[in-house]
Order: sequence, then C-alpha cells, then structure tokens
Amino acid sequence: MSSETNWHYENFDPTGSAIGYRITRKLDEVQSEFQKIEIFESTDWGNLMLIDGAMMLTTKDNFFYHEMMSHPALFTHDAPKNVVIIGGGDCGTLREVLKHPGVETAVQCDIDEQVTRMAEKWFPELCESNHDPRAQLLFDDGVAYMKNCAPNSVDIVIVDSTDPVGPAEGLFNKSFYESCFAALREDGILVQQSESPLMLIELIKEMRAEMGKAGFQSFQTLPFPQPCYPTGWWSCTMARKSAGANFSFRERDARTDGLKTDYYSADIHRGAQTLPPFVARALG
Amino acid sequence: MSSETNWHYENFDPTGSAIGYRITRKLDEVQSEFQKIEIFESTDWGNLMLIDGAMMLTTKDNFFYHEMMSHPALFTHDAPKNVVIIGGGDCGTLREVLKHPGVETAVQCDIDEQVTRMAEKWFPELCESNHDPRAQLLFDDGVAYMKNCAPNSVDIVIVDSTDPVGPAEGLFNKSFYESCFAALREDGILVQQSESPLMLIELIKEMRAEMGKAGFQSFQTLPFPQPCYPTGWWSCTMARKSAGANFSFRERDARTDGLKTDYYSADIHRGAQTLPPFVARALG
Repeated sequence: MSSETNWHYENFDPTGSAIGYRITRKLDEVQSEFQKIEIFESTDWGNLMLIDGAMMLTTKDNFFYHEMMSHPALFTHDAPKNVVIIGGGDCGTLREVLKHPGVETAVQCDIDEQVTRMAEKWFPELCESNHDPRAQLLFDDGVAYMKNCAPNSVDIVIVDSTDPVGPAEGLFNKSFYESCFAALREDGILVQQSESPLMLIELIKEMRAEMGKAGFQSFQTLPFPQPCYPTGWWSCTMARKSAGANFSFRERDARTDGLKTDYYSADIHRGAQTLPPFVARALG
Repeated sequence: MSSETNWHYENFDPTGSAIGYRITRKLDEVQSEFQKIEIFESTDWGNLMLIDGAMMLTTKDNFFYHEMMSHPALFTHDAPKNVVIIGGGDCGTLREVLKHPGVETAVQCDIDEQVTRMAEKWFPELCESNHDPRAQLLFDDGVAYMKNCAPNSVDIVIVDSTDPVGPAEGLFNKSFYESCFAALREDGILVQQSESPLMLIELIKEMRAEMGKAGFQSFQTLPFPQPCYPTGWWSCTMARKSAGANFSFRERDARTDGLKTDYYSADIHRGAQTLPPFVARALG
C-alpha cells in the first residue's frame, strides 16, 4: 500500500453514522452551476463520485443501485415502451433500462450536464448506452420536464436523484408526483430511490403519503444492499395508480431474457418483495 | 445535538472502507486476559461494543446478525435439540436459539468471560435468556471444547466469532472443522459467520475449502444486511456432512411457530437462499 493513501469520511447527520474510503488521489473536480462534483480514486472501490461532499457512486458497488432502480419496475410493467429517468445523470440507470429490448424510448433528464460529463470521463462503462438510438439525454429541470410531459405518454418514471435537500428537493412532494401521475399511462409505474429502511423509514412513509396525495394508491418498497450509502442498506419504492394494483412481475421473462446483471435476478426480485418483519410493521 | 458528540471511525484495511458512528461518550472499558473491550454510547445506534477497536455490535442493528446466525440453521435442521455456540459471548445468538421450543440444550462457549459481563451490563436485552434452564454458559477455549465434545452428540454448531485474526484465528481451519464434524450427528449443521460477499468473497471460498477438507460436502451461504460490519452486507455459511445435502427448511414451522423476530422470516430465508448472480459466479 502506498504511503500516500488517506481516508475520506462522510458523516451522515440523519443516521448518526459515517462511511469512509481509502483514497489514493483526487482525480477531478468541477463546480457546476448547481453543485460541486468531485472524483476520487480509491484503493479498493475504483473511482468515487461525490456531489457536494455526498457519496453518489463507486465503480465497485453502483450495480446494486442501478439494477434495482430499473429491472424490478421494468419487469413489473407488462410491456414498458416509454421510460423517463429524472436525475440519473451518471447514466447507469439508463444503461440498465436499455438492456430491455422492448423499450422504445428512454429519456434521461438531469438538471446538471456536468454530472454526465464527469461520468463519461470517469465511469465510461456506465455511459456505454448513451448513444443508443432509443436514448435521449436532456439537461434540464426534471420538475418542469414532468409537468410539461404529454398526459398518458409514459410507462415508467424512474426518479434517480440525490437526497431530498438541495437541487433534488422538488422531487419528493405532491406537486411533482401529480405531474408523474398525469404523464403515466393507466398501468404506469413510478419508482424512486427511498433511502435506508433501517434508519430513514419515516422518509419512506412521508414519500408514500405524498405519492398518495397525488393519486397513487398502491406501493411496494424493495430493500437492497448499497454499501456506499448510509447504513449500507437502501431501498426503492414503486407506486401504481389503482388500488390493490398488482406488483407481481414477469418472472418468466426475468429468468429467460438473458439480461446480464450482477445483483438483479428473478429470485432476488422475489426475495425483495417481502419486507423484513420490522420494516413491514413500520410501514403498517 | 450536544456539542460534545464526536465521530468514531473504524478503518477496515482488507476492504479499503470505513464505518463511523456519532458518539456521545465512552461508557465502559476493560482489558481482559484476551482483548480490550470498549462500550460507547451513540446518538442513533444505542450502545456500541468494540473489541480491540473492531465493531462487534450495536443496540440498533445486532438483530440482523443474531437472527441470521441462528434461525436459518435451526429451521433447516429437522429437529434440532442440542446446540453449541462457539464464541457468541454477547449472548444474542443464544437468545435467538432458545426461542425454539424444541431445543433441549444450548451450550455457549466463549473464551472471554468479560464479553458476557459487558453484555449483561450494557446489552441486557441480549442476555434475557441466560438463565433459561436449557442454557449453559462456559468460558473456555472453543477449539478445545469442540475437540473434546462427545462424537455424534450435537445437532447444530454455530461459530459466532470475531474475524479470523487474534483469539478467533483457530476457528477458521480444517482442524477445528474436523472437531465440529465429529461432534455433529449425521444430519447436523455447522454454521459460521462468513464476512462480506462483496469484498471478502475469497474468505468465503477458503472457509468452504477448509470445511471441505474436514469432510463437509454441502454448503449454503446466506447474505444479509449488517450495517455495522464492513460494506454493510454480511453472510453466514452453513455446511452439512453429506453430498447434495438438502438445505430446504421447515418453512411451515418458520411461518407458524410465532417466533418474535425483526429481520428473519420464512420469506427472508427463502430470499436469501438464492445468491445474487455475481456471488453465485464467484463461488462457482
């Protein structure tokens, strides 16, 4: 081990815990119009991207998050053709979405072009589908994009954003969810990253309540490991329009479509569908 | 938040990552014959126990580990009556084991009595079954205990130890596993904590190889969240004597026995049985 390594720690105030990495050097840094983006090289986790000091992704472990933000929703929908990703500027979710051959259009709308430029440079593997003819990369306000979306035109909205502070604050309230509701077709699915089911369960409850005010009536939260986020255990929450909506998924397709994945599988999806008792109790 | 809080970080050299907690004060400290045991009070995780600077458990999240170290093995065995816990001095695994009414004897053999004394003082909820008439607490060398165990007398051996350095080093090799093999009945199960499937998969492979040299022929590794351990994602590995041994479990009992658990359930158990693709590939 080089004597020049040092440890970079990120303290998470809401959870009272911290995660750190052994760093070899800072590779890049840019102050965009919206936020400060830093890239570090680590000894064991590949490259790290931090936004305003908060860990966004590492080369080593981003697959958990990107696969779970996309494949469960896409296999739950009967035939997803039109997908919108709000945020997701690192392009990792877009790459997973485009693994589904039935998808005809995938719009990624991130407010900050610099996130994508940094991803192209330091996480090129996540950007390998950016030139897929079905992909459209917009750098614009996701709240405005959803508001102006044609009604009943979208099958899946994936909200792949930072935490509900700063630029992403507007992506966690009734007004934004109403736009999503209007843009989604009747059988559409909204899916959003929903923080740690261990320490931030109140946020999941608030998110579901806001989605409910916007008209969504059925919810499913799926936990998954995510080592670089607080507590190392994260979740996404899916919402559908109708009461008692079905969250069973196209299990046969998930087994036979031959998607190359590292964490997601039909069995992992099934396993994530039943919450641990303490989470089920907390969500009522 | 009191201005007197500070952050305590633990750097994990083998994974190049760190975990930290916001601490209010040190509650206790003892240098035993074997190791240094420290107790901290935290803002969000209850009390913390560190051994030689390594995080052992927190009030908030120890249930993941203790439930997954016990219930999967006990429900996989047809009728476990005699259980031995090697290590486990905090008594949390013992408590879970004794939730099974069919268990007749549960021996806990930890080399360091001070771990149990500190647990009784600072984690009393984990020690609530210590006076169960079926429980026997020994403070002795686990390697010697297993070596002297009567052949074919044990249904389940749970190795609930620290990492394979220091006092626990002897619990990760062929010689120790041979003692376990001899002590276990033909349908017995050995289960051991097997570190992070993300960053320490080589250790799982080595552990299985050593168990194999001792005669065990069938293995199953179950991942689970464990926020206070490196990467926040941990595992246990079960071993059985016969080739192609069955790891299906008494699912009906797991659903109807009414065990009060926070993480474990029949569905969680089923979900953990299928490894994520990247782990399955790594374990061949």
